Amino acid sequence: MRTVYSDRHRLQDGKAELVDGRLLPCFETPRRADLILAEVKARGLGEVIGPEAFGKEPLARVHDPRYLAFLETAWDEWVAAHGDHDALPLVWAIRGHRNREPGTIGGRLSYFSMDAGTPITAGTWKAATASADVALTGAKLVAGGEGAAFSLCRPPGHHSGPDYLGGYCFLNNAAIAAQWLRDQGAARVAVLDIDYHHGNGTQIVFYGRADVLFLSIHADPAEEYPHFLGYADETGTGAGEGFTRNYPLPWGTGFDRWSGALDDALAAVRAYAPDAVVVSLGVDAFKDDPISRFTLESADFTTAGRRIGALNLPTLFVMEGGYAIGPIGVNAVNVLAGFEDARGR
Amino acid sequence: MRTVYSDRHRLQDGKAELVDGRLLPCFETPRRADLILAEVKARGLGEVIGPEAFGKEPLARVHDPRYLAFLETAWDEWVAAHGDHDALPLVWAIRGHRNREPGTIGGRLSYFSMDAGTPITAGTWKAATASADVALTGAKLVAGGEGAAFSLCRPPGHHSGPDYLGGYCFLNNAAIAAQWLRDQGAARVAVLDIDYHHGNGTQIVFYGRADVLFLSIHADPAEEYPHFLGYADETGTGAGEGFTRNYPLPWGTGFDRWSGALDDALAAVRAYAPDAVVVSLGVDAFKDDPISRFTLESADFTTAGRRIGALNLPTLFVMEGGYAIGPIGVNAVNVLAGFEDARGR
Repeated sequence: MRTVYSDRHRLQDGKAELVDGRLLPCFETPRRADLILAEVKARGLGEVIGPEAFGKEPLARVHDPRYLAFLETAWDEWVAAHGDHDALPLVWAIRGHRNREPGTIGGRLSYFSMDAGTPITAGTWKAATASADVALTGAKLVAGGEGAAFSLCRPPGHHSGPDYLGGYCFLNNAAIAAQWLRDQGAARVAVLDIDYHHGNGTQIVFYGRADVLFLSIHADPAEEYPHFLGYADETGTGAGEGFTRNYPLPWGTGFDRWSGALDDALAAVRAYAPDAVVVSLGVDAFKDDPISRFTLESADFTTAGRRIGALNLPTLFVMEGGYAIGPIGVNAVNVLAGFEDARGR
Repeated sequence: MRTVYSDRHRLQDGKAELVDGRLLPCFETPRRADLILAEVKARGLGEVIGPEAFGKEPLARVHDPRYLAFLETAWDEWVAAHGDHDALPLVWAIRGHRNREPGTIGGRLSYFSMDAGTPITAGTWKAATASADVALTGAKLVAGGEGAAFSLCRPPGHHSGPDYLGGYCFLNNAAIAAQWLRDQGAARVAVLDIDYHHGNGTQIVFYGRADVLFLSIHADPAEEYPHFLGYADETGTGAGEGFTRNYPLPWGTGFDRWSGALDDALAAVRAYAPDAVVVSLGVDAFKDDPISRFTLESADFTTAGRRIGALNLPTLFVMEGGYAIGPIGVNAVNVLAGFEDARGR
């Protein structure tokens, strides 16, 4: 399969994030994408191409225009008000408070953020829009008849909701790609999220809809970030009832249990018979991930890829998380190689 | 008037808070209370006494038992899970997410916090409960017939709501004192909050009630922390309709405009005819405050104290914010001395 990649991901290079009460060097670094790209080339996965520019319209199909306007100018406003250092929000609208957008950049940053671990930097807007273009270009390959494509997105996207950033995510690449596939004529799209963390942003975007099936296998939010979404009893609402499926798993989960959830999710995808599948591909379920607590081995990612390939459906892989830097390329490409293997390519 | 003070405030000594995207040394330091105490003594305001121990019952009249249980053991759980450094939350339940208490200490810290600027430290529970006892002991003096008392509380309290901490506050000392006065037989209590920041926690505690009038003069939340409460159109709900009054003022406000709001608030207090007044005494409206943007002079605090004294009502002063360390004692005691002057003492 072809890989879509843009150097512009390097423009998102945050210095620090709040982890366990300390500001630590960001886990979500440019090196992540560089290493995945190197492995794509080393393994001969296929041609690497740059993204097309899709503009803002596909973003606005998923994100609130006020949020997009905020994100585009946030850095300049932040620098003018606070100085030339990464922007992190401070306060949020807890129970009993009002969800009302304040007027100042500090207040608006708080309003449009879901955590204090996702710094807005000088290059955030350019990197995030390039990442969305990478996803959209991959979607276009799939819509154009290629059986599969790999959008090597960075920054990731699945935590970003209609009007907020968080979890290193600014624009929801997978949701933008899924919506674009729908807008191009796909009747049904399934989004399968195998990142270690729940894909809260994606879930919210499609929660009331039957035309996009969302499935997420992740650490139990009672234990793990993002904590406030991703429970098993969240199954969709209204027309979307039954079209969200969550598989929260406890800390320490290994491949046996994890793959059981995957098999169940894949059966649901098969029954749904979508025109395309978007895989939110995080590899932080890996045993040595520094901020995660599952125990998958590198070889397990190959097996997972094979099972996804056995669906035999047009499939777009969209890169999400994974913070064990050394093996990140191997783990990500293992999924893709396993997929290709199942397709007999 | 007598001052109630406890050395145990020193047990809350956070290392860092998140300010404008950086971890900076805490603004809310033990030195603040030390300097106010020194000025109380230097000016001969009156006897300084220690607090009585009131136990948990008066706290539970204002705070959720689950929150109190969390706060009491949070540090030990945090150290066991994350290590021996100050605890700050990371993520919150933004729009579309669920307000459900997670199981792990990291998740629970997020659930019970409204910002990332209020570190839980080894001494937080002891310092916060001592601060509440300082407030309650002052309330007891006032209930016992003393015309006024000064509860030199630290940590402050007015941002803490029924089930959350934030804004350097863990237990809402002013609300706890006001509720205790009600429980001791006061028919009506007015809480006048002159801290630069909106007293969001206090407002929420009494928002549906007519027996406590809450008035707050503060920086406009559209511009300033806490951003998501404190607008003029918040006037109470149900039986409490009309018993909340907010005076949001723009950055740069000086004493002319500020005192106009004060006079209006004092007229409302007079009309309410409470049995006691609790003043949430912040002095961060001062022109040199490092995190605030009003322009009051030190002498203005004397004038404010005089006008409060002219109410001629039993009055408990509860210390809240103020971060211009050098003049903090002068500014706080100026309010108290102005008050005493108006009473002819």
